Amino acid sequence: MIKVGIIGSTGYAGVEIVRLITQHPEAEVVWYGSRSYVDQKYAEVFRNMFEIVDAKCLEDNMDELADAVDVIFTATPQGLCGSLVNEEILNKVKIVDLSADFRIKDVATYEKWYGITHQSPQFIEEAVYGLCEINREKTKGARLVANPGCYTTCSILSIYPLVKEGLIDPKSIIVDAKSGTSGAGRGAKVPNLFCEVNENIKAYGVTSHRHTPEIEEQLGYAAGEEVLINFTPHLVPMQRGILVTAYANLTKDVTYDEVKAVYDKYYAKEQFVRVLDKDVCPETRWVEGSNYVDVNFKIDERTGRIIMMGALDNLIKGAAGQAVQNMNILFGLEENAGLQQIPMFP
Amino acid sequence: MIKVGIIGSTGYAGVEIVRLITQHPEAEVVWYGSRSYVDQKYAEVFRNMFEIVDAKCLEDNMDELADAVDVIFTATPQGLCGSLVNEEILNKVKIVDLSADFRIKDVATYEKWYGITHQSPQFIEEAVYGLCEINREKTKGARLVANPGCYTTCSILSIYPLVKEGLIDPKSIIVDAKSGTSGAGRGAKVPNLFCEVNENIKAYGVTSHRHTPEIEEQLGYAAGEEVLINFTPHLVPMQRGILVTAYANLTKDVTYDEVKAVYDKYYAKEQFVRVLDKDVCPETRWVEGSNYVDVNFKIDERTGRIIMMGALDNLIKGAAGQAVQNMNILFGLEENAGLQQIPMFP
Amino acid sequence: MIKVGIIGSTGYAGVEIVRLITQHPEAEVVWYGSRSYVDQKYAEVFRNMFEIVDAKCLEDNMDELADAVDVIFTATPQGLCGSLVNEEILNKVKIVDLSADFRIKDVATYEKWYGITHQSPQFIEEAVYGLCEINREKTKGARLVANPGCYTTCSILSIYPLVKEGLIDPKSIIVDAKSGTSGAGRGAKVPNLFCEVNENIKAYGVTSHRHTPEIEEQLGYAAGEEVLINFTPHLVPMQRGILVTAYANLTKDVTYDEVKAVYDKYYAKEQFVRVLDKDVCPETRWVEGSNYVDVNFKIDERTGRIIMMGALDNLIKGAAGQAVQNMNILFGLEENAGLQQIPMFP
Amino acid sequence: MIKVGIIGSTGYAGVEIVRLITQHPEAEVVWYGSRSYVDQKYAEVFRNMFEIVDAKCLEDNMDELADAVDVIFTATPQGLCGSLVNEEILNKVKIVDLSADFRIKDVATYEKWYGITHQSPQFIEEAVYGLCEINREKTKGARLVANPGCYTTCSILSIYPLVKEGLIDPKSIIVDAKSGTSGAGRGAKVPNLFCEVNENIKAYGVTSHRHTPEIEEQLGYAAGEEVLINFTPHLVPMQRGILVTAYANLTKDVTYDEVKAVYDKYYAKEQFVRVLDKDVCPETRWVEGSNYVDVNFKIDERTGRIIMMGALDNLIKGAAGQAVQNMNILFGLEENAGLQQIPMFP
Repeated sequence: MIKVGIIGSTGYAGVEIVRLITQHPEAEVVWYGSRSYVDQKYAEVFRNMFEIVDAKCLEDNMDELADAVDVIFTATPQGLCGSLVNEEILNKVKIVDLSADFRIKDVATYEKWYGITHQSPQFIEEAVYGLCEINREKTKGARLVANPGCYTTCSILSIYPLVKEGLIDPKSIIVDAKSGTSGAGRGAKVPNLFCEVNENIKAYGVTSHRHTPEIEEQLGYAAGEEVLINFTPHLVPMQRGILVTAYANLTKDVTYDEVKAVYDKYYAKEQFVRVLDKDVCPETRWVEGSNYVDVNFKIDERTGRIIMMGALDNLIKGAAGQAVQNMNILFGLEENAGLQQIPMFP
Repeated sequence: MIKVGIIGSTGYAGVEIVRLITQHPEAEVVWYGSRSYVDQKYAEVFRNMFEIVDAKCLEDNMDELADAVDVIFTATPQGLCGSLVNEEILNKVKIVDLSADFRIKDVATYEKWYGITHQSPQFIEEAVYGLCEINREKTKGARLVANPGCYTTCSILSIYPLVKEGLIDPKSIIVDAKSGTSGAGRGAKVPNLFCEVNENIKAYGVTSHRHTPEIEEQLGYAAGEEVLINFTPHLVPMQRGILVTAYANLTKDVTYDEVKAVYDKYYAKEQFVRVLDKDVCPETRWVEGSNYVDVNFKIDERTGRIIMMGALDNLIKGAAGQAVQNMNILFGLEENAGLQQIPMFP
Repeated sequence: MIKVGIIGSTGYAGVEIVRLITQHPEAEVVWYGSRSYVDQKYAEVFRNMFEIVDAKCLEDNMDELADAVDVIFTATPQGLCGSLVNEEILNKVKIVDLSADFRIKDVATYEKWYGITHQSPQFIEEAVYGLCEINREKTKGARLVANPGCYTTCSILSIYPLVKEGLIDPKSIIVDAKSGTSGAGRGAKVPNLFCEVNENIKAYGVTSHRHTPEIEEQLGYAAGEEVLINFTPHLVPMQRGILVTAYANLTKDVTYDEVKAVYDKYYAKEQFVRVLDKDVCPETRWVEGSNYVDVNFKIDERTGRIIMMGALDNLIKGAAGQAVQNMNILFGLEENAGLQQIPMFP
Repeated sequence: MIKVGIIGSTGYAGVEIVRLITQHPEAEVVWYGSRSYVDQKYAEVFRNMFEIVDAKCLEDNMDELADAVDVIFTATPQGLCGSLVNEEILNKVKIVDLSADFRIKDVATYEKWYGITHQSPQFIEEAVYGLCEINREKTKGARLVANPGCYTTCSILSIYPLVKEGLIDPKSIIVDAKSGTSGAGRGAKVPNLFCEVNENIKAYGVTSHRHTPEIEEQLGYAAGEEVLINFTPHLVPMQRGILVTAYANLTKDVTYDEVKAVYDKYYAKEQFVRVLDKDVCPETRWVEGSNYVDVNFKIDERTGRIIMMGALDNLIKGAAGQAVQNMNILFGLEENAGLQQIPMFP
């Protein structure tokens, strides 16, 4: 059994890692890290785990942790993972970082968008951007995986094939994204109260959301040129789910079948990416509780644009599920081990 | 007192007209039309009206109705109003049509997008598109007002000043809209069940939603040239509210202050359009229960685009409230009579 | 115009008072008290008030406030009003206290259930328990009104006629109550986050909720004997609304008509209490946004019990609306002034 | 592999059976019955099954079905299963009936509460009431299992130990229950629309809900005497979950530890019933997505009553999960096979 340690196990992404690993056939959680709940029973924080998890929450002790486990998931605020890693740690244990610390190759870009001084820029180069469907081969053998953001996973997977194949103008991409509220975390803040979120929708972080440069960088690799996008996230009164509606100008006349073939080229063999049937729009409910991403597109001949859409569960394929998928790749397991949950509806 | 008749009073827009008119100082509902609930007490259909409305629902009898009232609101499916109006009716009574029948000047466009043969194309020309803030003067003295759609009201008011002043390229406009579920009406359909809508977000009518040509026509008048847009509506798990996030390329370098001045030029004197403070994004909760539209914008210097945003209550400014506002204009009342409700939060 | 000051104007009950008074024909808010937002514009805290309220939030300065206004609403945590009132203040200004400080006549009971030492027990005797439909006459001329709790208003009005007329055994009463989340206040606490409240229902404060002795005291006055009840509140994933389902043993065989006559005896002339038609169950949506309480009952001949039900909007009849109703009584205005909003649906 | 046929596979309970069986290690669905969607691909009805289930929906053909499968789940309206079974069918195949047809031993009681003439009263006697934790032994070897109702499973498991041990007066039991909306089924009805359910709570079926006699019969067996209860269900704006709050008079003075020991006597060895820690109230979110029932109690010394509480996922332990649990018992599998999902939060 692979021994798993989690730093930040009492956030929403943390408890989802716990849920997935507890049902994983070849891994087990042996370290429930949580600064906020040290010495408290984990099942008292998350009572769904009553009679399932008996352990208590532990302080962050990176050295002790690195000796105790085979892989560490850091489900923590930006900057923490960067402050914890060092050569010795990385030689002992694999790290899958769910924060943004190692996602962006250009440290200046990271520091500008996040307003943080990076504590370990020397490891950025070797870190692998863990978008499994694209970087699977690079991840094998890695020591440090930067688990992608929730919005970015959904955005990139929706757009990637068309950028890669040159069917859309990378300068014309607009991503309008919508997220459930678990993406805002479990911090006690007025804007996340039930009465503030319910019966409301709003945009936030307009022109300034931190997932923007992450999407731009990854799509830039695919395009072979610099990509600038507009990315606008919205908060939706639901718990889980991200929906991306992306717009771009087509570079040439294309038919439905031609574009479908491009999506299939990249995703037909992927278990977790489902290219939907013609005219079926992705909906978050059809992926909730699973590691799936549903994608599709619609050509608008009137305007010469294409609308690309994607849906995923922000806590699974957008966070914990992809982290487990990366763990599976790192340790040579079946990539879908522990991740075969069927979406739950209603 | 102005006597009001409502055809379709037992839909969501219908009951909202009833609520507004019942509190209106100079109007009263004297005809509660409803095909589905003929002879049933209105307050048994909508129990909020218990001990407030004592009347029963009546069949559509256009002749009798035209004799009994001063103004008719048609809150009915597409095609019905078109089949009911004639010269005699219009000489007796004002009509405010909440359906799309008289919104679009080009009958071929109407018939193509709606898949309906128009029954009264001869009245399209005289019908006034009742977007009050733009067409107020034309509405005075009209016989037939085409009350704008919910998405269109929000979209046009968010974008109009910049198109009118030539600050954005009208060919580059993309409108990504999000609506609460009351916009889907009160019909008993599986897709509108609680368990289907809740915990879900989806796009629908992608590239084909019927509000597209309505927005294009009105923005076209402002631009002085043909406008083609992408319009994508989404269904959000909330009852009321529409949020529009619109994107366009700026035609020149502009500052925040310059753009703000343009919005103020058109809206500073408008009671129901609130241009928000810098960097404040419209949210549907802040307008719910009122006739307000909140608008704002954000310039993205990186991409040369501007993001325009608007929020309104789809049943009020997006339907019943604007209909009452049009009635007020038609009858020379204070334009805000019966419409001064403060948004209700939470 | 009656000048109104609000201590605690930035909670959910506070903003509802502001909304109601702003639309009141004979009153105006001149003091927006808020410890948390001193010197901040009120409309920046609650953006529904943008372009409607221009004032800034003020610190609690009881002396200055008492000179500036005719009536003070205290929408504050338990204990604060008790610490602020004194003879001088009460001689200058009317006080409507939305906290529990002056609701319970026995100070020992108050101190036991609330765990607070009462700071002004000398004023408990003169304070009038402001359940308008029952204590209207006592309220006229009062200096200090204890505005009832939300659960208690709904519970008492649902049960009162049957206790008063001796139709039910007061020792057998069980009140199972359900509340929307605005009742939990606007404090930033994890249990009130969207993701914690949504898709969940739970009981809380079982056998120990503080509204228990308040209901018992008031029903005891009606019964003419001590009343002990079970009261169990539940948190429901909605914003507004309280539903009470109460059970009691009938003291004799009664018919529907006999019980209906008893309810009508007390409520037929009350504008804000609606006794529903036979077999119609109260629902919170039919009172939301209004000062109404809907009540009804169902006799169970099999078990010899009666089920009494009531629904209200916890922020209006359960808090701010009843406070305004009390203000109207205190100042000799029409009791429904500013309170004639029709419930908003959907 | 056990071959499973489902009649009514396109309701909410049906799709949950499909989800559970698809992940079951020793069973597979080979017949997707659905009158409404004959010949349509199952994954087009429930798109969560896209690329997971390839089959089409089939008509009800009981003879063909009985030859094709080892067990039939009937997730259908009342009366249908009763009309389908006969000796020949029962000799070929096991039946787990999720409707009420075989739950109540007294056919007159069934016909009175359901208003239906029973088509197969001759099988009522042999049918086993499949509340697994209580009737496990009887179920082994049965041909026909009456899968309990959702409310009844939650109510009985919450109350059973205290009735069985004589700690509460069975004549005093009051059950106040709250359910998510999936319990109302997938039929297209106005009362189940999003805008009707959301932001609302109501009681329904007061004194007349059909689960009443089912609870009474089962508790009567435990009590050894006739039991009459009050049962009041409520509709809550959430998708899944039932919460029961039950009240009864204690027959003697008891301590927390004594009552806890009684619950533990019956449930300590049960995987799917969790007796919570002292003072912890069951909440539906902590069982959602799992086959667990969480129960607990609170003694009220003031009133001499005990409050018993239970929470379950109405579609799993309240329907599909218990049906699979019964299948496991029928076929001698591990009782928790395919049912080890951890509750999903948030």
